[in-house]
Amino acid sequence: MPQGQVVEIPDDGLTTRARRNRPLVIVHTGEMKGKSTAAFGLALRAWNQGWSIGVFQFVKSAKWRVGEEAAFRALDRLHHETGEGGPVQWHKMGAGWSWARKKGTEADHAASALEGWREIRRRISRAEHQLYVLDEFTYPLNWGWVDLGEVLEALAGRPGTQHVVITGRNAPASLVEAADLVLETTKIKHPMDAGQKGQRGIEW
Amino acid sequence: MPQGQVVEIPDDGLTTRARRNRPLVIVHTGEMKGKSTAAFGLALRAWNQGWSIGVFQFVKSAKWRVGEEAAFRALDRLHHETGEGGPVQWHKMGAGWSWARKKGTEADHAASALEGWREIRRRISRAEHQLYVLDEFTYPLNWGWVDLGEVLEALAGRPGTQHVVITGRNAPASLVEAADLVLETTKIKHPMDAGQKGQRGIEW
Repeated sequence: MPQGQVVEIPDDGLTTRARRNRPLVIVHTGEMKGKSTAAFGLALRAWNQGWSIGVFQFVKSAKWRVGEEAAFRALDRLHHETGEGGPVQWHKMGAGWSWARKKGTEADHAASALEGWREIRRRISRAEHQLYVLDEFTYPLNWGWVDLGEVLEALAGRPGTQHVVITGRNAPASLVEAADLVLETTKIKHPMDAGQKGQRGIEW
Repeated sequence: MPQGQVVEIPDDGLTTRARRNRPLVIVHTGEMKGKSTAAFGLALRAWNQGWSIGVFQFVKSAKWRVGEEAAFRALDRLHHETGEGGPVQWHKMGAGWSWARKKGTEADHAASALEGWREIRRRISRAEHQLYVLDEFTYPLNWGWVDLGEVLEALAGRPGTQHVVITGRNAPASLVEAADLVLETTKIKHPMDAGQKGQRGIEW
């Protein structure tokens, strides 16, 4: 059972069941990488429910999330072989976007990010996935590569029961406002403060 | 690459490589469930490195973590079938402890927690796993079911490269002191504040 307390019953005319299955926008923000890690932990639950999961990485380094990607690709394969869990699609912005490998655009990250978002918007309008992980999506939003108003409109108007998790530092205030659940992960103590470098299996 | 900055090179006589592969004690604390979710996200990276993972759940509700458990059991099976990733063992405290199903002790959670911890301590002394997830372990510590001094001693003296992640609210100060990395997840906004109940695929 969830640890939170229901402090107020909203006067929204919904039944408990309807309210229980309400699609959520979740924002994981804060200074540390725990925010993305938690989003992928959440995706494990979604996988077990048989949901279709779409992961969209708005990061450039090929090193990031290789562990998570390998594990979810394995879970996707398992789904297709045995019917267990749900299907998982994993897409990377830029050269990694599998549906948009146009020559000459590889280096154009702003265009890639926008193209990536537009593909997500198309999928949302078709209710293609039940869980979307928009990893490090706050960066293209904050840099103005993707229009925040367009994102909020697409989220507000999304059909069916589609949950969207957005991670990244400095989530814009209006995104936090529009979100149902916002978690912030902060560092109390980090080994890199004591000269420790990132290591395999822990940082990636 | 990690987002943190190396602010100080420690005068510990270690090479960068030795420091890089130093075993970590990680504590995920705070008021929200994101802390455990992040620990399981981290375990995905460990799985991809082929590490042996031991998950030890110090919770009572059978509903908790069912999604994560199912996904990691699937990843463990995949490892045994194809050699991909690493092996994952998943153990529950109380009636769920697979090595200790003594008649009459099922209801004795304090004894179960202690028995569970002692099994973990044996494994640590034999360097049986490379990653331990001690989920919600702060509760038996805070309730005095498991002696904190004994835990700190076992962690400090553990052989080889064994990483230990401990989750739960109100991590004891001396555990935070002993840890290499401490992350705290706080709620900025939660749907249950607006009368939303927990839902399948999101909360479990």
